[in-house]
Amino acid sequence: MQNVMDQAALERFIAEEFREVAGLLSVDEVTEQSVTLRLDPDDAHLRPGGTVSGPTMFLLADVAIYLAILAKIGPVALAVTTNAHIDFMRKPQAGVPLLGEASLLKLGRSLAVGQVMIRNPESDAILAHASMTYSIPPTR
Amino acid sequence: MQNVMDQAALERFIAEEFREVAGLLSVDEVTEQSVTLRLDPDDAHLRPGGTVSGPTMFLLADVAIYLAILAKIGPVALAVTTNAHIDFMRKPQAGVPLLGEASLLKLGRSLAVGQVMIRNPESDAILAHASMTYSIPPTR
Amino acid sequence: MQNVMDQAALERFIAEEFREVAGLLSVDEVTEQSVTLRLDPDDAHLRPGGTVSGPTMFLLADVAIYLAILAKIGPVALAVTTNAHIDFMRKPQAGVPLLGEASLLKLGRSLAVGQVMIRNPESDAILAHASMTYSIPPTR
Amino acid sequence: MQNVMDQAALERFIAEEFREVAGLLSVDEVTEQSVTLRLDPDDAHLRPGGTVSGPTMFLLADVAIYLAILAKIGPVALAVTTNAHIDFMRKPQAGVPLLGEASLLKLGRSLAVGQVMIRNPESDAILAHASMTYSIPPTR
Repeated sequence: MQNVMDQAALERFIAEEFREVAGLLSVDEVTEQSVTLRLDPDDAHLRPGGTVSGPTMFLLADVAIYLAILAKIGPVALAVTTNAHIDFMRKPQAGVPLLGEASLLKLGRSLAVGQVMIRNPESDAILAHASMTYSIPPTR
Repeated sequence: MQNVMDQAALERFIAEEFREVAGLLSVDEVTEQSVTLRLDPDDAHLRPGGTVSGPTMFLLADVAIYLAILAKIGPVALAVTTNAHIDFMRKPQAGVPLLGEASLLKLGRSLAVGQVMIRNPESDAILAHASMTYSIPPTR
Repeated sequence: MQNVMDQAALERFIAEEFREVAGLLSVDEVTEQSVTLRLDPDDAHLRPGGTVSGPTMFLLADVAIYLAILAKIGPVALAVTTNAHIDFMRKPQAGVPLLGEASLLKLGRSLAVGQVMIRNPESDAILAHASMTYSIPPTR
Repeated sequence: MQNVMDQAALERFIAEEFREVAGLLSVDEVTEQSVTLRLDPDDAHLRPGGTVSGPTMFLLADVAIYLAILAKIGPVALAVTTNAHIDFMRKPQAGVPLLGEASLLKLGRSLAVGQVMIRNPESDAILAHASMTYSIPPTR
């Protein structure tokens, strides 16, 4: 299935609709299969020892899957997360960005399901894996 | 099971160990069955329309369950969330604090499981429900 | 919110629509807040040591929440589980029935969310806790 | 990481330890990355319309991830599922086997995390996706 929003369009969407986290997040790569979102943590997102906090990884996962949906259906600002599951498997390295690679498992009329793998750049180790469901408003 | 940390001790723990979110969060009530944590959202935690974002509710749930564990076992700064599930059921009211009431479903030697109900004050409607598992380091 | 199906009506629904598991399951109690379903395990549902298997507890949770929805909206045979989370906390006693007490966290037009606590009779220890989301077909 | 149990060894393990479901399940393929388990549903696992029930897909997911762990660490009959999340995305075709392809996201000393994709043979559509955590007893 083709994308209807490319990397630049997704970047603009973050800048406009997620203003409060726009400085943290940038779109790293967009393909037909996935959207990879990058998070550059600042001090507010760290835990003792310099690792990134769980809620910050949740934020990365949530926005990454959201963008993977928008890439297919366009800028639907009102899609909402209905539930989320996240497994935290390894501590992120201190002072290193995170990459969240999101792909869709289902894109239905009213529900979409996506998953995301979170890694540090230049590492294969999966730090966290999340799956989330979004409700898509009927107006599209 | 009796508590080993009371409201004041949990407040101090947040101030010292969760410095980056300490201004957002305050301990509302501590009983033998539950710890209720309050989140006063600022502009950084809002979504268009004034509702609190999903990742902010995740943060409230994560810290509330963490404190419910610490109330029983004392200040173990290194307990980590191993996985989390959250259902988002209703949008929070705009400009209103959130209360997360956390209770433990299991407190084992190495794993603890807790759940949290998130509400607005003076409302019975459950906005979100989360269950999370924490790994407790062996040294305690 | 009042019930539109009582214990006898839910029992009949199981007998007709869940024929393949009807012998295992019986409705123990129905209140306005919850439906409690009982599972009497036979040898096919046991693991070594006589405890009930995880998938069997999942079955109990799934049907209990389903019935808690039907108690409110009537016999909608086509509601489907869209996702489920279950925490297994303690091993069930061998050779003892299980009770699953299900309550609804949300009953919307198209999505319902419920949770269930699984216990042995005459024990307070929670063996497993599940939360599940159901999609309700638009025709009701 | 190399396997310590191959397809034949995993088949024998099912026959001995999961006797009650052994007739339903067979090991379809074992690689270093994944274990694929096949479920041939009989009438007891169907819902009206001939689709396989949710609890039956949960059973397939649970055993598939369990075998993916055993393939790496050997026959540890006492590993237990501590929690599980499953998204049901599409209805299985009636009268058709299911394949569950399980891979590990983490294999730690005391916890292992795996995921599974459930499909019908000769189809790319993912019917369900699950992630599960297992506690591994310390004696190995």
